[in-house]
Amino acid sequence: MRYAKPLEDLIEEFRKFPSIGPKSAQRMAFTLLKKSPDQVAKFTKIIQDAKSQISYCHSCFNLSSDDLCNICKETSREQNQICVVETVKDLMALERTHEYRGLYHVLGGVISPLDGISADDLNIHALISRVREITQLFSAGKSERNAAIGHQEISLEIILAIGLSTEGEATMLYIKRLLEQLGPVLNIRVTRLAHGLPVGADLDYADEMTLTKALEARVLA
Amino acid sequence: MRYAKPLEDLIEEFRKFPSIGPKSAQRMAFTLLKKSPDQVAKFTKIIQDAKSQISYCHSCFNLSSDDLCNICKETSREQNQICVVETVKDLMALERTHEYRGLYHVLGGVISPLDGISADDLNIHALISRVREITQLFSAGKSERNAAIGHQEISLEIILAIGLSTEGEATMLYIKRLLEQLGPVLNIRVTRLAHGLPVGADLDYADEMTLTKALEARVLA
Repeated sequence: MRYAKPLEDLIEEFRKFPSIGPKSAQRMAFTLLKKSPDQVAKFTKIIQDAKSQISYCHSCFNLSSDDLCNICKETSREQNQICVVETVKDLMALERTHEYRGLYHVLGGVISPLDGISADDLNIHALISRVREITQLFSAGKSERNAAIGHQEISLEIILAIGLSTEGEATMLYIKRLLEQLGPVLNIRVTRLAHGLPVGADLDYADEMTLTKALEARVLA
Repeated sequence: MRYAKPLEDLIEEFRKFPSIGPKSAQRMAFTLLKKSPDQVAKFTKIIQDAKSQISYCHSCFNLSSDDLCNICKETSREQNQICVVETVKDLMALERTHEYRGLYHVLGGVISPLDGISADDLNIHALISRVREITQLFSAGKSERNAAIGHQEISLEIILAIGLSTEGEATMLYIKRLLEQLGPVLNIRVTRLAHGLPVGADLDYADEMTLTKALEARVLA
């Protein structure tokens, strides 16, 4: 005995989402059936709108409903800082700190040969082109970006904000090499996030790797 | 800083489902955006189909794509047993046991004055009408149901398979009273599920209520 076919199909569709088990999928399907036809029509319209209107920002690959995302459009942001992140979720996590006021570049993942993800599957080359373009604009000395930064000492900082997994480390190293190959046309600083104990964490709950990193990066008290 | 409007709307829609938190909603929205336009079109079609095709069985209020659900259509099932459940999920749970071969009646909830749910909001009166109809068919002695049951001693069993919450108890009592008022036209047995220790459960993990019920209903070893 199973549910009627259209209901089984609906549950099956919800099951395809990550972290949605059979019980959750069933609950979601029932919730959906309880909605009014208008509400269901609104739900499907929102899905279709999101799919048709949302695409990647042409500059930083953030999700956006325009060619340029809201962050890239914001001229008040530091134009000489690019924070390289793995996913749009990581970008949003950094935005929630309200600390960072520069630009971003979303890679769309990390290099992972085991999963068949090479550098070509990510937005790494787009990052290099973007950096090269900025350097050229700088050298031409006639860009708006240039004006925004001012004509004093020109420097560009690339912050690699990628997780410390093996793949993450490899990806950061790869990007760093590519940036170094660009040559010393521009003063590019490549930095990475500090690693150490999370704020409020108990020492004995931290893993060895984190503790090692925290020890290595110790500062004067 | 927030996501682009269509994406925010999508996340918000997923948030409306029960037990879907902000993180899950975000994950689901991203998963959806990663699907191909065809897959998204298929997803919205399945939602619309389920909503337009699935309704309640006219007899037992199970979810069904026809006037009568698959269970009510199955003539091989015991026609003189009606198991009264709170939700379609409970019906499915009982079906999974493969033990029960009678019919069902889905109430759609329990009487709960605090939540503003009265007997009129549930399918209780439909149950009484259904029982009355069966008794009339029996007395007329010319129904197909009658033929299915056979002309020997006619009896109808109503199994109240509702949870032991205060509201559940009250609902069972209410239904029992209504059935008694139908009079002794037909030999109606009103039963309820046995309560006791779950199979495989440790005694010290059982709550007092369950242990009390298990003690009261103790059987010869």
